[in-house]
Amino acid sequence: MIQIAILGLGTVGGGVAKVVAENAKQIERKLGEPLQVKAVLVRHFKDGPYRQLMTDDFSKIEEDDSIRVVVETIGGVDAAYTYTKRALSAGKHVVTANKQLVAERGFELLALAKRKNVHYLFEASVGGGIPVLHPLTQCLAANRIDEVCGILNGTTNYILTRMVRTGAFFSDALREAQAKGYAEADPTADVEGLDAGRKICILADLAFGHQIDPKQVPMEGISKLSLRDVKIAQRAGYRVKLLGRALRLPGGGRTAYVAPHLIPEDNPIAGVEDVFNAVLIRGNAVGEVMFYGRGAGELPTASACVSDVMECLQASPKREDTGWPAADEGFEDPAELHTRHYFRIEGSLTDAAMAFGQVEVLSEDGETAFLTDSLSGRDAARQSRSLNVLACMRVLDG
Amino acid sequence: MIQIAILGLGTVGGGVAKVVAENAKQIERKLGEPLQVKAVLVRHFKDGPYRQLMTDDFSKIEEDDSIRVVVETIGGVDAAYTYTKRALSAGKHVVTANKQLVAERGFELLALAKRKNVHYLFEASVGGGIPVLHPLTQCLAANRIDEVCGILNGTTNYILTRMVRTGAFFSDALREAQAKGYAEADPTADVEGLDAGRKICILADLAFGHQIDPKQVPMEGISKLSLRDVKIAQRAGYRVKLLGRALRLPGGGRTAYVAPHLIPEDNPIAGVEDVFNAVLIRGNAVGEVMFYGRGAGELPTASACVSDVMECLQASPKREDTGWPAADEGFEDPAELHTRHYFRIEGSLTDAAMAFGQVEVLSEDGETAFLTDSLSGRDAARQSRSLNVLACMRVLDG
Repeated sequence: MIQIAILGLGTVGGGVAKVVAENAKQIERKLGEPLQVKAVLVRHFKDGPYRQLMTDDFSKIEEDDSIRVVVETIGGVDAAYTYTKRALSAGKHVVTANKQLVAERGFELLALAKRKNVHYLFEASVGGGIPVLHPLTQCLAANRIDEVCGILNGTTNYILTRMVRTGAFFSDALREAQAKGYAEADPTADVEGLDAGRKICILADLAFGHQIDPKQVPMEGISKLSLRDVKIAQRAGYRVKLLGRALRLPGGGRTAYVAPHLIPEDNPIAGVEDVFNAVLIRGNAVGEVMFYGRGAGELPTASACVSDVMECLQASPKREDTGWPAADEGFEDPAELHTRHYFRIEGSLTDAAMAFGQVEVLSEDGETAFLTDSLSGRDAARQSRSLNVLACMRVLDG
Repeated sequence: MIQIAILGLGTVGGGVAKVVAENAKQIERKLGEPLQVKAVLVRHFKDGPYRQLMTDDFSKIEEDDSIRVVVETIGGVDAAYTYTKRALSAGKHVVTANKQLVAERGFELLALAKRKNVHYLFEASVGGGIPVLHPLTQCLAANRIDEVCGILNGTTNYILTRMVRTGAFFSDALREAQAKGYAEADPTADVEGLDAGRKICILADLAFGHQIDPKQVPMEGISKLSLRDVKIAQRAGYRVKLLGRALRLPGGGRTAYVAPHLIPEDNPIAGVEDVFNAVLIRGNAVGEVMFYGRGAGELPTASACVSDVMECLQASPKREDTGWPAADEGFEDPAELHTRHYFRIEGSLTDAAMAFGQVEVLSEDGETAFLTDSLSGRDAARQSRSLNVLACMRVLDG
């Protein structure tokens, strides 16, 4: 019998308890012995199926040597950070879906886990149940990873899908997402790109082997996106999607950012709709591979957490490639990245041509919408300084 | 310094040597020491960059204790089977892309590897470089897997894409694929579904934990597919794709088969074009996840092999969930599976209605093409016995 504890009993924590119970037979066959939830840390006791397992005292879990794995589902940094450090220090494996904690403190917690010879695993922190982090670090280990790029936030993808399909304004599509339970009452972290930003930091850390400080990463969401640009893009054969991107730059530096992009409609990422997520990884041997599925939800996220629990119990934590150093030298401003740019300006094609030379016109309707040749974000900003810019987005090339 | 040997120096073997050389720095950082190809087994010596490493005597590799991993890229069963057994027996890990050997003898080779406390890994045998098998067995370990379904053969997908896009006949599209190097001079294994069949057997073995004998699995290719059905399907909002499917049946049995299907065009698998592969996995916790990329090619396949080599050196082979028993009780004829069926008959709508009751007409043009309600393959065959059937395919529902 293998005992685990769950910290928090919200959506993810409850899902973990459910999956452990419902798939007990499959899990036992693979582990060779049964898996059992022995304790659940809560702030307030509540009636329900897990009432006898509840405690509000973390030291009960910390001091119980029969508990080998702790699943942290509290979220945020404060208490989650403290309990994770204490659990690792007590020689317990820790599994989490907490993207903020991993993005901000992952390097430190992984180093602690390594010293204690235990695992700190967080597959669920990116893409919910979609396997992404293990494939990136293990199945693609023989590659130099050149790019990771993805639709990492289901809420904003749902909103964008509604804007494209029904012509809804952003504010109406957001209200619809809230009514369906896809968006929080306070949707800031989703719509302003912070959630996708934390995820692209974790992907970049693993892909490049260096900590990237989330504070360095420009994060632009979709709250300022105009329906007009979505429509112009669509008529020209593009879909607008919020992408997190982490890239190796030609000079050897690395960059990462979150922003809405125009995606050519024959790119597989363009077809990712509703609350689905997709992560595209480009390696120098494998080429491009893509992972697709529901990026959130109780049971998908729990699927990743419980699979990580099983991994803790079966795999040696001594891999050289777990963890990344805190040093983040080599991070470059994504303004260095060259792509085509979409502009909508108050002005004529002549104004556009004066600023950028030859451009591809998408719409001339009082305003002018056009695509530039490939140029850096820095040059796009500099050359457009004389224009009255109403909207600007990068195009996902290649 | 970690030494490995490569058996065979064809496309995959050459690719493995290339990736080891080209990504030496990344690989060393992750392994903690350099990886080196010490020997290459060939039948005939040839000049080239690996000339000094070549041997035609397997016992030189077998008896060299400094060689820890053998990458088998010979293909087929005979020599590959013998050398794999000898390498595992000598306490060496073995990595391969050999789908035929794994599908037919995997259970036996995995059992031998387990006894010898070494790995037998074969991520490259399905989907080339796309991570599929590790995600299935590890990242989704907490799930009861209910279905694995995929476009597993790039050659046939290329041919089907050409038929849809340019209206080419099968024979012309095949010639084009051969000219581009996507199809072998003898294309039988691809176009008759054998290659996809071996891959779906491996996926089913891992998903359900029981060996499925490839001889039991019905494999239908695309050589008899008519352009007419491709066009009727397309007009009705479907794409024709060759699918390998492995399913858990409602009664608890398991089945697997390969056949062309009609796929609704809003299903993500419908958009997988050209030589790309995609594998969809449905688990009871995670829901549906999809893995997408190039399913073949020198470097993508080598990416998976070299990543498996690294896995051998880093992970404990003591997992309970590696391997599957030979016993294949519980395999059921896929004729038990219920789906909608597509028929094209020489006859009228009245003939169709006499056989199946209400049907959805797709085309009435001398012949009649229609979709039935959901019914088993057995009933579809029985109820159509009085009809003059020109074509019959399953529809991918759900």
